[in-house]
Amino acid sequence: MSTATYTVSGMTCGHCVSSVKEEVGGVQGVTGVEVDLATGRVTVTGDGPVDPAAVGAAVKEAGYTVVEQP
Amino acid sequence: MSTATYTVSGMTCGHCVSSVKEEVGGVQGVTGVEVDLATGRVTVTGDGPVDPAAVGAAVKEAGYTVVEQP
Repeated sequence: MSTATYTVSGMTCGHCVSSVKEEVGGVQGVTGVEVDLATGRVTVTGDGPVDPAAVGAAVKEAGYTVVEQP
Repeated sequence: MSTATYTVSGMTCGHCVSSVKEEVGGVQGVTGVEVDLATGRVTVTGDGPVDPAAVGAAVKEAGYTVVEQP
């Protein structure tokens, strides 16, 4: 099991949160995604190591940007 | 044909715009909805008169508020 926290910029509302959760939730190995809209913190849990580059790509796919990663 | 402009508060991103367009687009008689995110202006066209109360209810259903109506 792994937990990693990213900071994502550009999310402004609950729809943005949903988009990020959906895309990041589809990354291989990811079992949970929590998003704090106010801070932009995205906490990703996995059943094993999760590739930060894949998380970054998923965030970008959703239309946002990772500004800090583990 | 009718055209009316509303001002809606709370929209922060393209997802919000889509939600408003979808809900207001479902109001009886509405044939087009244009949204300017920066100003919050929502222009509603119809094939006849459109009930402003119904537009207000649709905006509320989408999660936002009409602050100015015709």
